[in-house]
Amino acid sequence: MKETVLGIDIGGTYTKYGILDRDGNCLAEDFMSTDVYREFDAYLENLHSVIENTIQGLNEEITLMGVGIGAPNGNYYKGTIEHPPNLNWKGIIPFIERFKAYFKNMPMVLTNDANAAALGEMIYGGAKGMKDFIVITLGTGLGSGIVVNGNLVYGHDGFAGELGHVNVKLKGRDCGCGKKGCLETYVSATGIKRTVFHLLGERTCESDLRNVSYTDLTAKMITEAARKGDLIALEAFEYTGKILGSKLADAVGHTSPEAIFLLGGLAKAKDLIMNPTIQYMEENLLPIYRNKIKVLLSSLQETNAGVLGASALASNELEKNHRSL
Amino acid sequence: MKETVLGIDIGGTYTKYGILDRDGNCLAEDFMSTDVYREFDAYLENLHSVIENTIQGLNEEITLMGVGIGAPNGNYYKGTIEHPPNLNWKGIIPFIERFKAYFKNMPMVLTNDANAAALGEMIYGGAKGMKDFIVITLGTGLGSGIVVNGNLVYGHDGFAGELGHVNVKLKGRDCGCGKKGCLETYVSATGIKRTVFHLLGERTCESDLRNVSYTDLTAKMITEAARKGDLIALEAFEYTGKILGSKLADAVGHTSPEAIFLLGGLAKAKDLIMNPTIQYMEENLLPIYRNKIKVLLSSLQETNAGVLGASALASNELEKNHRSL
Repeated sequence: MKETVLGIDIGGTYTKYGILDRDGNCLAEDFMSTDVYREFDAYLENLHSVIENTIQGLNEEITLMGVGIGAPNGNYYKGTIEHPPNLNWKGIIPFIERFKAYFKNMPMVLTNDANAAALGEMIYGGAKGMKDFIVITLGTGLGSGIVVNGNLVYGHDGFAGELGHVNVKLKGRDCGCGKKGCLETYVSATGIKRTVFHLLGERTCESDLRNVSYTDLTAKMITEAARKGDLIALEAFEYTGKILGSKLADAVGHTSPEAIFLLGGLAKAKDLIMNPTIQYMEENLLPIYRNKIKVLLSSLQETNAGVLGASALASNELEKNHRSL
Repeated sequence: MKETVLGIDIGGTYTKYGILDRDGNCLAEDFMSTDVYREFDAYLENLHSVIENTIQGLNEEITLMGVGIGAPNGNYYKGTIEHPPNLNWKGIIPFIERFKAYFKNMPMVLTNDANAAALGEMIYGGAKGMKDFIVITLGTGLGSGIVVNGNLVYGHDGFAGELGHVNVKLKGRDCGCGKKGCLETYVSATGIKRTVFHLLGERTCESDLRNVSYTDLTAKMITEAARKGDLIALEAFEYTGKILGSKLADAVGHTSPEAIFLLGGLAKAKDLIMNPTIQYMEENLLPIYRNKIKVLLSSLQETNAGVLGASALASNELEKNHRSL
């Protein structure tokens, strides 16, 4: 019987999951809606049943060794999801406690999605063999997972690694967290869109982006416009990379990583975001750090990075427990 | 024979050292000049001979188990001091390699002074029993030591924990590191002095500080003026705490510590610096972190914190090696 782990990636819109073997090969994966469930109980009931169906549908016998869950505001120590801004369920959700009722005695571990992505990068991706690195996820918001000396940094409360909310500008852009001027309001798929709208007001140059509403505009459209030489889109990437680079320089001053990996929708713009990010990071680095911190695109496949990360979390935990025996 | 460690704290002006037993009790301590030595060889020769004299002068027999050194730009992995801005010796100084010639086969370990202070806090001070905390030293500059999960963060290159050089303001104040707008140009004994001079130009209110030259002004004088209600001094503390608080909030977003300890000249102002720092840190924290991060004054005695830290570094290393046997 093949040893496997179950990786679950809980997002605001979809919950994706996969059954992976211990080498990270995906035997099956699927997804279901997250946001249609007003009640957490109904969500959990359905999540369990779709997963059971997926396992039944496998054409080989497996042993499920553990479950890893990546979730917004996931608390590693408590197995809870706490006050998630983009989920329907409010307050402190005892995810693992409740989910364990469906999987008797199964080892389960939960952390935030970006932390899971960092473990995915370490176990299956470009950070193999690295002991100190940071993963930045550039999706709707900006998430981060920090690895120090081979271990994910959880902090005293399980919530470490929230670079999306370091301050860029006092009294800056409104953030979903209730603060103003947070990094993710400038640097994320949403952040660059906000920058484009600001620039459309500031500049008089022609731009295809003038024909798109705020609701309709996506990071992908901004990327495509920039590739065609659209001045607004190009300036938006430059501005975004400038802010990201400066904050990555600050992050280096904290944990001095060997590499920083970028992942997520905005990272798909590749050189458009990488070039200004690297340039401004280097300019802002203390001289002792210059020309030695790699900024790299994540090598995880975008579509299943979350699931891969969550399963890496489970694998890593099993490995840790095995070690301590 | 009593087991002891030697702690050496290398500063720009003085080099302090002490012989401590394994419980952190100081059997003897002394200091010598650092800056009178143009040549590193002469410095090292003299450092060794004053230490030997101190050991000879002890009225009990000791066994020296190890040496810990705290030094600016100290590289833990290499035992080097690299491009120190405030020392006479330039380039990369192979401190441990050279110093070992005087102490045959003695275990020696070196890191930057703020990292050493963090270990001092963990082993002998207020961070006993804590696994995640940060120590900020507020002297001529701003140093920091970050502890994650019970271990000091060194980073991939041995230089982690340089919060003094995170960016406060683009094109801000000139910093000794060559950049502009670094945190230590605002928050340190020198930083608050620069703020006072800025405010003396901005404001028209009376202030005793108008009678003091830039060269003569000290953080202690600013503290005393503030205690007497001097408006410039009070505003300078408010401004300094505001910037420190905001950057501590960012630091929390990286490693989520249980506590942050302040140490050094400016920390002696106690509530004058603590109150605005805590207020603005809380305002800038992501809600999940609020009201749970302690900001505390270091419990290490100011005068020997560096030596205590350096000896804690040595003790910690001996302990780590012992553990791995």
